[in-house]
Amino acid sequence: MTSINKFHHSVFLQRQIIRKFCSHNHGDKSSKILSTSTATLELATKQQLYMLDSSSPGSVFFLPHGTRIFNKLLKFMKLQQEKQGFTEVITPLMYKKQLWEISGHWSKYSEDMFRVEGNDKSKFDEDEKDDIYGLKPMNCPGHCIVFKRFNRSYKELPIRFSDWSSLHRNEASGALTGLTRVRRFHQDDGHIFCTNDQIGDEISKTIKLIKICYNIFGLNKFRMMLSTRPDNYIGNLEDWNIAENELSNVLNKELGNNKWSLREGDGAFYGPKIDILLTDKFGKEHQSATIQLDFQLPQRFKLEYQNDKDGYDIPIMIHRAIFGSVERFMALLIDHYQGKWPFWLSPRQAIVIPINDNHKLYANKIVKQLSNESEDFENATKLNENKYFIDLDDRNETVGFRTKDAINKGYNYIILIGDKEIENGELAIRSRNDRKIEKLTVEQISEKFNKLENNYE
Amino acid sequence: MTSINKFHHSVFLQRQIIRKFCSHNHGDKSSKILSTSTATLELATKQQLYMLDSSSPGSVFFLPHGTRIFNKLLKFMKLQQEKQGFTEVITPLMYKKQLWEISGHWSKYSEDMFRVEGNDKSKFDEDEKDDIYGLKPMNCPGHCIVFKRFNRSYKELPIRFSDWSSLHRNEASGALTGLTRVRRFHQDDGHIFCTNDQIGDEISKTIKLIKICYNIFGLNKFRMMLSTRPDNYIGNLEDWNIAENELSNVLNKELGNNKWSLREGDGAFYGPKIDILLTDKFGKEHQSATIQLDFQLPQRFKLEYQNDKDGYDIPIMIHRAIFGSVERFMALLIDHYQGKWPFWLSPRQAIVIPINDNHKLYANKIVKQLSNESEDFENATKLNENKYFIDLDDRNETVGFRTKDAINKGYNYIILIGDKEIENGELAIRSRNDRKIEKLTVEQISEKFNKLENNYE
Repeated sequence: MTSINKFHHSVFLQRQIIRKFCSHNHGDKSSKILSTSTATLELATKQQLYMLDSSSPGSVFFLPHGTRIFNKLLKFMKLQQEKQGFTEVITPLMYKKQLWEISGHWSKYSEDMFRVEGNDKSKFDEDEKDDIYGLKPMNCPGHCIVFKRFNRSYKELPIRFSDWSSLHRNEASGALTGLTRVRRFHQDDGHIFCTNDQIGDEISKTIKLIKICYNIFGLNKFRMMLSTRPDNYIGNLEDWNIAENELSNVLNKELGNNKWSLREGDGAFYGPKIDILLTDKFGKEHQSATIQLDFQLPQRFKLEYQNDKDGYDIPIMIHRAIFGSVERFMALLIDHYQGKWPFWLSPRQAIVIPINDNHKLYANKIVKQLSNESEDFENATKLNENKYFIDLDDRNETVGFRTKDAINKGYNYIILIGDKEIENGELAIRSRNDRKIEKLTVEQISEKFNKLENNYE
Repeated sequence: MTSINKFHHSVFLQRQIIRKFCSHNHGDKSSKILSTSTATLELATKQQLYMLDSSSPGSVFFLPHGTRIFNKLLKFMKLQQEKQGFTEVITPLMYKKQLWEISGHWSKYSEDMFRVEGNDKSKFDEDEKDDIYGLKPMNCPGHCIVFKRFNRSYKELPIRFSDWSSLHRNEASGALTGLTRVRRFHQDDGHIFCTNDQIGDEISKTIKLIKICYNIFGLNKFRMMLSTRPDNYIGNLEDWNIAENELSNVLNKELGNNKWSLREGDGAFYGPKIDILLTDKFGKEHQSATIQLDFQLPQRFKLEYQNDKDGYDIPIMIHRAIFGSVERFMALLIDHYQGKWPFWLSPRQAIVIPINDNHKLYANKIVKQLSNESEDFENATKLNENKYFIDLDDRNETVGFRTKDAINKGYNYIILIGDKEIENGELAIRSRNDRKIEKLTVEQISEKFNKLENNYE
């Protein structure tokens, strides 16, 4: 091996370590996912969900309809997190180099981090180290700072922070692909600070949540893998043994014996982890959720809590995400649903079509009623009203043309308004998938919509 | 003047221009606001709303209770924006230098922008201009890119984008103060792309919304100022005249004749604007909302839409924000309420105090019922349930001590549970401000909470 090759080899190895070090937040990048990216992009373009632009490679522009899906996913997951005792925090996007030195990212990960400089300072003093930042690739260091700020007692634990910050990673520009290989992304990120005794319960609740969530999306085929202590582990052996034992017990309890697999020695050097591989309806596997124990970061940040014996202990940190990257999960859902979003998640829930000009005014009224949106500009909209995405198509085209167009655009329901409908107060509604027309009053349709939304259908 | 002084003077002037150029998104920075920052910080610290840290000067860490307020403000404003026809987009946080050259920021504002570099590229090619970014100080260029991507017709206008992105401005570190002078902030940002004919209607709706919103918060004292064409204006005189005329008509209509003031020649070079100064209950004025017409950016980005005569026109762009910076609006609200948050906005809506150990289990049940949070970990939480922030104080302290502590922490309601309460199913509830105790069932309390939330009380 020449010295240059040696150098490259060592750089390569270092990056392998980095990937491992950081994989808990971004997951695998297998070519399997890339293969569908063209189809995903085509669907997303047709439905105007997102766009990409050379002004910011790898950063997704979510268009209005894509933003609706994105926000609904967030709303959904925030509710589930709250039930599990997570409290959301909003943390900075960039931190000084010194912080990344403490966390270990500056030495192991700086190549994959965007470097930020305050312009005016660096102009006058090139060596001004104080004005150099890294754009955060993950939320954990920020959460350690919040944990550390207050005196913590065992009585408060587990403390569970969730965070929806933008994260940035400097992926090579040639590798960027749609929603799956990006430079800017969001996670349903959560960090649990707990005692050794609490690990089992927390992991158990997380696995339950993974099962619940995937089930909502009809993603029922997944497998979990426990990766255990590697040779280069840090921390003490007893902690590892207890934790690994706990994790396998929980997996047996939640999934059943032998319903998961073991990757011996494949854990991160800072703790054992559970990876979840999700199979979409085409049989492809995707890395999605992750649960990682971390013995290291709490030490690096010198975190502690008062135990029940008047002493101090170091908490365990658990990194966990259910969606993983929201962007990537959305790509998976686009593939999974093939653009036919279930009602609750749909950015185009219904469209109202007036048969001719005489029906336009009434149709417009129906749109307002069903979307639950008033035109009262004199008062504030109330906080807790169900809103639906209902559009009007009053173009001068035939009903047949507009119906076909609506189906093509993916509207879940099509509502026709003609003389008879206005007279009887019963609207003609049909679904995207079924030519059968039902006659329902506005109230009945609202009820139908509420039921669909409430049942995640 | 020596040449160095001349240089500094020109830099100073340039920065003045910059401030003007960019003021539509950040508002004034008068010393009036700074004077209360210590009191604001004390209140916020006591209530654990946010913290600051040297690892990221000028970037606020919102703690769980501050995040609740932040998110409620967002929820509130998103609902109001939706009614006005805004659709949310999620746009990248950093853009290549070339984009900022088009927008004019690189030459006029780069000193106040954080510069971002992709590490691996710059290592091998120092002159690689393609890998230099600016962290966005405002959302407008991103929205121009989204507008430009599709063929637009007059039939679609007005197009209204809203955006809640993180924004960064490189304020001098010595000037950073709490929530009011920050480097990272969020806006209730919106951009309207419209025709000349639509300006009046859009401005009118925006002024209505400003009045509605400020009223919700009990902020009823504000004044509006119209700033008109400066000497160095761009665009054509006729457009300016039409627009200024339109703005004063709208102001007369919405506020009454002479209920606003004129700042002749004080508009931005790219368009006239309306500034809103809000008076808090201590008589201090704060720059908050802003409405700015922009003839320039659509030109710089070569935006156009098909008009009704088979030709193309350049849209007008309106920058508008009601809160302005959410961080700054929060600071204003902390001062305004002095920590006594109204129920709907409160991060601590009620606390349940069991009188002794025998009442703990029941008290815990009441917390779950009132917060509308189940412990059902086998099913997903439903999407559209009202959630309330209800805590339990089951410490072994006297009821008097815990009540006092609850008031001190700012809980809106205190609910006592003893033998009698459990027997009768009627709970003893008192408000923060009134020693009077009411006896209400859980259902009656829930109703009370729903009513308060629905009426923004």
